[in-house]
Amino acid sequence: MIWNSPTYPWPHGKTSAACFSVDVDATSPYLWQHRDGLPKGLAVLEHRKYGMREGLARMVAMLERVGIKGSFFVPGVVAEENPDLLPGLMERGHEIALHGYYHEIVAETSDQRFTDALEASIDLFVSQTGQKPVGFRSPAWEMTPHMLAELARLELWDSSLMGSDTPYTIANVTEVPVRWDNDDAIFFKFLGAGDKSPRPDRELFAQWQGDVGAQQRSGGLFMLTVHDWISGRAARVEMLEELFAPLVNDPTVWVTTCGALAAHHETVQIRLDVTPDTITPINSRDPSYG
Amino acid sequence: MIWNSPTYPWPHGKTSAACFSVDVDATSPYLWQHRDGLPKGLAVLEHRKYGMREGLARMVAMLERVGIKGSFFVPGVVAEENPDLLPGLMERGHEIALHGYYHEIVAETSDQRFTDALEASIDLFVSQTGQKPVGFRSPAWEMTPHMLAELARLELWDSSLMGSDTPYTIANVTEVPVRWDNDDAIFFKFLGAGDKSPRPDRELFAQWQGDVGAQQRSGGLFMLTVHDWISGRAARVEMLEELFAPLVNDPTVWVTTCGALAAHHETVQIRLDVTPDTITPINSRDPSYG
Amino acid sequence: MIWNSPTYPWPHGKTSAACFSVDVDATSPYLWQHRDGLPKGLAVLEHRKYGMREGLARMVAMLERVGIKGSFFVPGVVAEENPDLLPGLMERGHEIALHGYYHEIVAETSDQRFTDALEASIDLFVSQTGQKPVGFRSPAWEMTPHMLAELARLELWDSSLMGSDTPYTIANVTEVPVRWDNDDAIFFKFLGAGDKSPRPDRELFAQWQGDVGAQQRSGGLFMLTVHDWISGRAARVEMLEELFAPLVNDPTVWVTTCGALAAHHETVQIRLDVTPDTITPINSRDPSYG
Amino acid sequence: MIWNSPTYPWPHGKTSAACFSVDVDATSPYLWQHRDGLPKGLAVLEHRKYGMREGLARMVAMLERVGIKGSFFVPGVVAEENPDLLPGLMERGHEIALHGYYHEIVAETSDQRFTDALEASIDLFVSQTGQKPVGFRSPAWEMTPHMLAELARLELWDSSLMGSDTPYTIANVTEVPVRWDNDDAIFFKFLGAGDKSPRPDRELFAQWQGDVGAQQRSGGLFMLTVHDWISGRAARVEMLEELFAPLVNDPTVWVTTCGALAAHHETVQIRLDVTPDTITPINSRDPSYG
Repeated sequence: MIWNSPTYPWPHGKTSAACFSVDVDATSPYLWQHRDGLPKGLAVLEHRKYGMREGLARMVAMLERVGIKGSFFVPGVVAEENPDLLPGLMERGHEIALHGYYHEIVAETSDQRFTDALEASIDLFVSQTGQKPVGFRSPAWEMTPHMLAELARLELWDSSLMGSDTPYTIANVTEVPVRWDNDDAIFFKFLGAGDKSPRPDRELFAQWQGDVGAQQRSGGLFMLTVHDWISGRAARVEMLEELFAPLVNDPTVWVTTCGALAAHHETVQIRLDVTPDTITPINSRDPSYG
Repeated sequence: MIWNSPTYPWPHGKTSAACFSVDVDATSPYLWQHRDGLPKGLAVLEHRKYGMREGLARMVAMLERVGIKGSFFVPGVVAEENPDLLPGLMERGHEIALHGYYHEIVAETSDQRFTDALEASIDLFVSQTGQKPVGFRSPAWEMTPHMLAELARLELWDSSLMGSDTPYTIANVTEVPVRWDNDDAIFFKFLGAGDKSPRPDRELFAQWQGDVGAQQRSGGLFMLTVHDWISGRAARVEMLEELFAPLVNDPTVWVTTCGALAAHHETVQIRLDVTPDTITPINSRDPSYG
Repeated sequence: MIWNSPTYPWPHGKTSAACFSVDVDATSPYLWQHRDGLPKGLAVLEHRKYGMREGLARMVAMLERVGIKGSFFVPGVVAEENPDLLPGLMERGHEIALHGYYHEIVAETSDQRFTDALEASIDLFVSQTGQKPVGFRSPAWEMTPHMLAELARLELWDSSLMGSDTPYTIANVTEVPVRWDNDDAIFFKFLGAGDKSPRPDRELFAQWQGDVGAQQRSGGLFMLTVHDWISGRAARVEMLEELFAPLVNDPTVWVTTCGALAAHHETVQIRLDVTPDTITPINSRDPSYG
Repeated sequence: MIWNSPTYPWPHGKTSAACFSVDVDATSPYLWQHRDGLPKGLAVLEHRKYGMREGLARMVAMLERVGIKGSFFVPGVVAEENPDLLPGLMERGHEIALHGYYHEIVAETSDQRFTDALEASIDLFVSQTGQKPVGFRSPAWEMTPHMLAELARLELWDSSLMGSDTPYTIANVTEVPVRWDNDDAIFFKFLGAGDKSPRPDRELFAQWQGDVGAQQRSGGLFMLTVHDWISGRAARVEMLEELFAPLVNDPTVWVTTCGALAAHHETVQIRLDVTPDTITPINSRDPSYG
């Protein structure tokens, strides 16, 4: 229990921060889900392909118009199938970072597989851009001690966890935190009967605008995460522009990338630094709970 | 990855488009669901029969009042059981198109069955109206390579996929795209305990109005899909009238049918033309992912 | 397909109707669900008992204040366990009607059981009030041909189906229609983890107010259904008062009971009169659909 | 059936009451869910740890700013792992009370286990604070006759049930009632795919503000329940402050703790006093219902 947490020291005289991040999943979660063989239906694939056809370019054009550099997390297979994606993002000054090779869901992936996918992704990024990526976000935002050790070994920051409103350090890895509440997919994603119905665009605008203000007043980080094929639709890009445009003109807010947040965090002296507990299950504490 | 997609060329000096489409499902999905034998309960059947008794006529009267020609997708069995439905729609100048015979769900239907149902539907339409239909929408909006091949063979356009905001071509079939976000069923349909609770009419009005505006500003197509027994209720028809009436009076918007959109698309020179990929499953790319 | 349905002829120069109905379920659905033995937990029972302790009396006081006679559908077991419930409602001028004995779910109940429960309920009503009830609403709003035959035999009207916006006749039974959209339970009911989260009171106020207006303009019936333990909470009774108070003062709206609606319907000459179809399942039409 | 329930007599000339309660669950429900062994993923744990790192302190600072004493229900294991939690709350004048040892879910816990966990929690509270706690709230708000008997034996009040809008007595235990409708978790909690999407902060503000007013007008208790890791986020604490600040300045509202409500209730003469029924299951009433 922390009764008095220190104010997080933002650089450049700023008193809060905001980041526009994109998980460029495209069709990769569908490939992962059907990794043993694809069904004959095309509907989900066509739906997801909207991002590479129209959505992502519209989103990037908006960021350029507003003057924001975004952070784009790209699974290896998406970069492989869209060879002008990573170079195009870099040319426009955006950050690119890792997001698994086949959007591997952690609970369905061995430690060795994670390491192999991470290294294959890095190799692909290097071959397409000439640069080694320095950041990672986990598909579906899960994390394990093994993954943290590998991120530390490869000197990658992470952006997958929710344990604070500002960057922190976990097992020697710099963590740039995310939040489900500020993710478009859990509100808008709809792929067929049984899914939750999408929430109105303006409802999320109001909710996120409220969080933007609260983070400004409390000195936190507003981290938004959107997806190419979900929020690339015209009305949503307009909504996101309306959300972020005022921040660029606010001298108190540091609108920046995950990488810049991570780099800054490594210079911060007094910071939250945690180690994942080795937790004893209840039944091992007291066998009578069996 | 498409970094610069061309502006879609609407005809008649228009800069965007809108279409009012109706999936006239009536009781057909219930018949399909219980194709081996019907349960004794009458509640769902009575609920669904509202459309043929009151809902569809109210909706059509509204379209006439506003001055819109709608696109009505009618399963064969619904036309068979309501023999004055197709003629009545045609007399009023609306478009009729195919929607399966028994609202066959694609994942539960063989290729041969699809072809048989399609041909039986066409025969029924011809016998009831004297005209061969030229368009198709898949029940529940699924599509397969076989279905596309059959649509091409029979020279039918399709309106079932979500890969763009404007018409496109897929495997030589003209696609007039739909969107779950602009479908009434996923927000309003409620058939009993366990279903999602219906969302407020005005919430959808605001959401759809927002999308109408965004499509106008971005040069896209606003495709609405409603159902006879869901949106035929009085308050919803009023809401739909309020949504579409301004579009008819807007000289920049082409308010038209799916068929007119498809016919125009076939004249467009620079257009999105895609082929469904034959995708190698992950495990076939790398057996260690087994 | 009905292209021109006649305007429904309301009496007394009225042009639309409204009805406040209450399904007084109390603990009965829980007893039914656990009819083989009750779990040890008390939470759901205490939650449901709120209606008999506070909710129903608050609702009835509101109806008296506004000047409305409500229609109360009471399962036999609820009347049995609360012997001053039916007499108290009658003293205050409200209508009481049948709702199963143990809130029997139709799909889990044999034809004979339905008949037995119906007759036992009638006997109990007679013994508690001296009068034979004349109306019925099915638990969870299901209906079968057998049930309709029994309602006809016992000269009971029904209020369980959704096939029209105004009273109709089905298999010689007068039907006073309901709608899921105007039921409180599907929006507000929450009994524990896994249930849908309750929707805001004011969201339903706006939605129902919208439907009230649409029914007025289209000449339909606004049938509201609430439950003792769900909408008896203070804020919801205030909301319901705000919804209905204006109707009482509107000379065009017939605010009345289900029984009065049914009695009027029996005098209507041109009316919707339907027979439940004997539907041939698809597989019996064409065995290849097996 | 109670036709006329007496007005509840609040003390100090107040005409209604309000209470800010916190279920300080932290990681305990996750430990319980995985009591046989923890999965390798860290995401849920990090998400839940937000409360002990930032959320609870922010919430407590708000209560101090507004001038409210809150009621904090703390599982034994959370107190054990955060030894400055209970003392820190007491120093600031807040109430602490029991909430299981490992957040034991009642349906998964034997009577003996409940007693053992209750006594171990009391011992821990005494060892950390020097005082025996006097109140209890059940994890997930379930209750059994055995639990009530144990609470009576140990002279603990309870705050877990929903049978009234004001304190009542059940099996000789004072009950300070809760409501799902006024619990943050069922609206905001999101731990991964499949969960309901979070509702907007301002939607709950409006809903709860509506209930605050209705309880004031009807003389009831507004009991709010929030969680450390859910509502400790900056925007939600602001929202809660906006909700409660006006109450503190309202001379008609008794803003107080569960303990003070319980102590007052024990002095009330005319009060709701119920005994959990021994309910005969339907099948034992009539074996033909088997």
